[in-house]
Amino acid sequence: MPGQLTDTIMRRLPIYYRHLCEMESEGVTQISSKELGDRLNQTPSQIRQDFNCFGGFGRQGYGYKVSELKDRIGALLGLHREHHMIVIGAGSIGRAITCYPAFTSDAFHVLGLFDIDQQKIGKRVNGLPVHSMEDLPGFLDENPVEIAVLAVPREAAQQCADLLVEKGVRAFWNFAPVDLRVDPQQCTVVDVHLSDSLQLLSCKMEIDRLSEAL
Amino acid sequence: MPGQLTDTIMRRLPIYYRHLCEMESEGVTQISSKELGDRLNQTPSQIRQDFNCFGGFGRQGYGYKVSELKDRIGALLGLHREHHMIVIGAGSIGRAITCYPAFTSDAFHVLGLFDIDQQKIGKRVNGLPVHSMEDLPGFLDENPVEIAVLAVPREAAQQCADLLVEKGVRAFWNFAPVDLRVDPQQCTVVDVHLSDSLQLLSCKMEIDRLSEAL
Repeated sequence: MPGQLTDTIMRRLPIYYRHLCEMESEGVTQISSKELGDRLNQTPSQIRQDFNCFGGFGRQGYGYKVSELKDRIGALLGLHREHHMIVIGAGSIGRAITCYPAFTSDAFHVLGLFDIDQQKIGKRVNGLPVHSMEDLPGFLDENPVEIAVLAVPREAAQQCADLLVEKGVRAFWNFAPVDLRVDPQQCTVVDVHLSDSLQLLSCKMEIDRLSEAL
Repeated sequence: MPGQLTDTIMRRLPIYYRHLCEMESEGVTQISSKELGDRLNQTPSQIRQDFNCFGGFGRQGYGYKVSELKDRIGALLGLHREHHMIVIGAGSIGRAITCYPAFTSDAFHVLGLFDIDQQKIGKRVNGLPVHSMEDLPGFLDENPVEIAVLAVPREAAQQCADLLVEKGVRAFWNFAPVDLRVDPQQCTVVDVHLSDSLQLLSCKMEIDRLSEAL
């Protein structure tokens, strides 16, 4: 079943999950694909198709059980597991990620930060120590880490990724403005390119401006 | 011409721009769609199609002039203009955005931060003052602001957006984990949902795990 999950559907799962959590906290227990569609600005048939991909079947005239669907999607998102993470780079982005409230959930645990800056090493961020990059190989030998957050400058990102792959890390949440060269058969990368995102916003503004001028 | 730019192509423009800047700094002056395609992991015909959308025509057997193409895409991205921004929320994300090096370019200028927390108000972030939210309407009367960065908790985001729209702000870079309800005819929103992004990563890891188990 999970093999049918395309990248496009995978990108929608966190959004479904977020809305299902909201509904649960609002006390909604059942929901139809029509109501979900209205809420998410999608067609009911799109929603049914997506959910069918992972066996999330609603019942005719009854819809979906919110808690059941939430748990099912949560499991596909790996949220029933604990993921150990490290943050490479204790600059403003690395520190912000370490303090991000999403990690207060049980699914994601930052074990520590790493930096090359002597001024940062030894300090604490959100109670976690900033280690020297020199200590990274030894740290990884002792602590199993699933996800590395790359919050380093562009120039340093590939070298960090290579070192981490060598030490067995296979998943990268990459904030460096560069496309990492890693083996896609072996590694998973999700990029957060903040600059690209801001430029997309200014592009949309520019296109609106040009359309208005026509 | 710009009307033919779909959302999908717009999302690729910052990536093209980033690579063209890299090439320029590497001293590359000309490039064929084949070479660009190899570099970006895309087909040459995809690249030619994208560039044709905005009249970025290459010459047969010669390709594209890197600096010309970079300037053309930069203009579509609005990078020839100065965008005045404010950051709402001086928490860790708001502070990280304010310190982000992308804003050292001439295109984006953060004018100030706003928060409701008395402990933060009056402090400085990257040399910029943190104002009280109470001062926001007056600030906007005196300072034209194009882009608001929303780095506030989920519960506060919609109320902030409503206030900003009322005061004439039309573009939102939204870091709050919520889908803003604003008039799409009037406002442009680009979301950076960090939680969704991390969950996408753990989803891909989970699907890999399930595939391996099969």
